[in-house]
Amino acid sequence: MDFQLDRTVEILEQTPGTLRAMLSGLSDAWIESDEGPDTWNAYDIVGHLIHGERADWIGRLKIILEEGVYRTFTPFDRFAQFEDSRGLTLADLLDTFEGLRGENLAKLEDLDLQPEQLGAQGTHPELGTVTARQLLATWAVHDLGHIAQIARAMAAGYSDQVGPWAKYLRILGSGN
Amino acid sequence: MDFQLDRTVEILEQTPGTLRAMLSGLSDAWIESDEGPDTWNAYDIVGHLIHGERADWIGRLKIILEEGVYRTFTPFDRFAQFEDSRGLTLADLLDTFEGLRGENLAKLEDLDLQPEQLGAQGTHPELGTVTARQLLATWAVHDLGHIAQIARAMAAGYSDQVGPWAKYLRILGSGN
Repeated sequence: MDFQLDRTVEILEQTPGTLRAMLSGLSDAWIESDEGPDTWNAYDIVGHLIHGERADWIGRLKIILEEGVYRTFTPFDRFAQFEDSRGLTLADLLDTFEGLRGENLAKLEDLDLQPEQLGAQGTHPELGTVTARQLLATWAVHDLGHIAQIARAMAAGYSDQVGPWAKYLRILGSGN
Repeated sequence: MDFQLDRTVEILEQTPGTLRAMLSGLSDAWIESDEGPDTWNAYDIVGHLIHGERADWIGRLKIILEEGVYRTFTPFDRFAQFEDSRGLTLADLLDTFEGLRGENLAKLEDLDLQPEQLGAQGTHPELGTVTARQLLATWAVHDLGHIAQIARAMAAGYSDQVGPWAKYLRILGSGN
């Protein structure tokens, strides 16, 4: 697929509703299920997505557009959600994510990005030179990655319950 | 996690809405994106889930409850959707899946399964002896597996667009 800004926004728009449909009203056992030590559960992942809305995507896009390669992005804290989410319910997090995503998509629309701006370059602290286009594509793929991760984390809760079917279920890591 | 019928139903209930939230209104390019030769796109996967509602889960549960180990399940056709979905839009498939899943969950509720029935055994054509409990757990994990697969298939469409970020994106198969 070619990059298209409109298509990228389609993915970014679906994520809050997808998370809400997947997770609203589930028992805590599903929300707290993870893939093992040092892996995230659904609650952690929604918190991580919130931190991305606050600290990552639109902020980095503006750095690229306004300051170019001369200002290296602030490194992203992959563990900020463990502090930020303290005391909040999953319903709180889903609402917060939906609100922030909506604000960020409004900011993106206000930028009215032109094709030549999509090639603008920035400097990632570890990856080096990246473009606005790559950042936006990554934002969308990052959403899909975490939707898949939530499905894996929940499925892992039932890994001992499926019996011999485990070998057919790739999501449990033993299938194909 | 222990197996609980109510919790299992929670996952089975969320899937139609999750697929609708993820896929409604997306460009065809996303719906047709797959992970490479001989892999499925989102359209194929929803068709496969529909075939499961028609030919697999509840039917096998009834075989277990009514006939036990003496009647081997009919093998499931993993490719039936390529014929069954012909001429249908994705919106048609999402509606069909939601309707069939609703009917099957109503049938499951009508069965009013008691704890001892969950241990009832059946015979899978390849896996041998399985239980009603394992079948129900597998139904839920199978849903989650295909939600993750849809996310992977769509993400793969942008695998060439994310540039150096690919190494951070496990969903593209190159990250961790």
